[in-house]
Amino acid sequence: MDIDLIQKRIRQFRDSRDWMKFHNPKNLAISISLESAELLEHFQWKSPEESELHAESAKSEIADEMADIAVYLIEMADNLGIDLEKAILGKLDKNAAKYPVEKAKGNAKKYTEL
Amino acid sequence: MDIDLIQKRIRQFRDSRDWMKFHNPKNLAISISLESAELLEHFQWKSPEESELHAESAKSEIADEMADIAVYLIEMADNLGIDLEKAILGKLDKNAAKYPVEKAKGNAKKYTEL
Amino acid sequence: MDIDLIQKRIRQFRDSRDWMKFHNPKNLAISISLESAELLEHFQWKSPEESELHAESAKSEIADEMADIAVYLIEMADNLGIDLEKAILGKLDKNAAKYPVEKAKGNAKKYTEL
Amino acid sequence: MDIDLIQKRIRQFRDSRDWMKFHNPKNLAISISLESAELLEHFQWKSPEESELHAESAKSEIADEMADIAVYLIEMADNLGIDLEKAILGKLDKNAAKYPVEKAKGNAKKYTEL
Repeated sequence: MDIDLIQKRIRQFRDSRDWMKFHNPKNLAISISLESAELLEHFQWKSPEESELHAESAKSEIADEMADIAVYLIEMADNLGIDLEKAILGKLDKNAAKYPVEKAKGNAKKYTEL
Repeated sequence: MDIDLIQKRIRQFRDSRDWMKFHNPKNLAISISLESAELLEHFQWKSPEESELHAESAKSEIADEMADIAVYLIEMADNLGIDLEKAILGKLDKNAAKYPVEKAKGNAKKYTEL
Repeated sequence: MDIDLIQKRIRQFRDSRDWMKFHNPKNLAISISLESAELLEHFQWKSPEESELHAESAKSEIADEMADIAVYLIEMADNLGIDLEKAILGKLDKNAAKYPVEKAKGNAKKYTEL
Repeated sequence: MDIDLIQKRIRQFRDSRDWMKFHNPKNLAISISLESAELLEHFQWKSPEESELHAESAKSEIADEMADIAVYLIEMADNLGIDLEKAILGKLDKNAAKYPVEKAKGNAKKYTEL
């Protein structure tokens, strides 16, 4: 994924509309949360099995909702000087240490306590 | 960003713990929403200005929360066969068409109606 | 439910701590959303059936999370001069008109389109 | 607030549409979270001051969003056998003990750590 290109495109979109004044960290965090709700709304009343079928049949709309979340997340990382790839890889290391395979394997209970 | 490597690492983490059975689209969308709330919690009572200062002083914790969101988002894209980069670039094009510069410039009202 | 007593207790709690300055409508809406996430976290990885069992075994913790949501909701209604009971009864009427029994009966699809 | 009447009306609405099968605790918690996002969306890009003005000018729409949250919350309490009023009063007592006036007064920092 060409994060540099995406961040450049986001900056152009935002700055040509003079919207930076609205994009403080609090408002971006709110926006990530609201877009996440729009993604979740797709699955609101569905069983786990129906959610699989719906993800297939509404793939394009779901991809759009996921893109909305990603755009705000990538902009926020850009604004805050956070290297998102480095943060992701570091967090995966932390998670691996926090949930040892032997304890966590197939265990929903353990998992929900994370 | 090396999405392929990140998706490979996420799959290894998940499958060695036998957690795929919990990772249907509905549960992943819930998890993205919950992690977004943890990010937003950082700014709960802060003014816009304080949110800027806090983003600086708590940068590492905020990066971790953003990574949690990104990990579930990238896994969900992997599971659903969605090309996240393509979805992001496509959504940026749609947004540019939806919010013409001349109408949207500096306009919070217009923006909130998106 | 004695809403007047609850609103009086909330005002006393808030004002004796001089917290009204943080309680603008935006921050209260954020707080309702964050408390809702804490409630949802209880059911994050659970199947529908497991969610029923968990609601029984963790009833007291779940009641506390629901109370947190209710407290912010009731305070927000108080601050905004909204009669919550009237709003609820009015909304139930609107919903009844929007989802006619003959069309909506047992229909998840109809429901998700609301 | 006549909770008994509201719960009776909610049960009638739901059962005449045969929707109880969708209303497990997990789905109700999701719905509370989604309705909270719709409330928050009203304030997405607004400053604290603008959020006060908007709460006044869009009072009726905001009351409707708050009612949506309340309806799911009251139904969930009904389904789970939770006395919401008792839960609220108990939680207010716990909060009062957790945030002593002398420590919490006017202190956003303390507050954000709750």
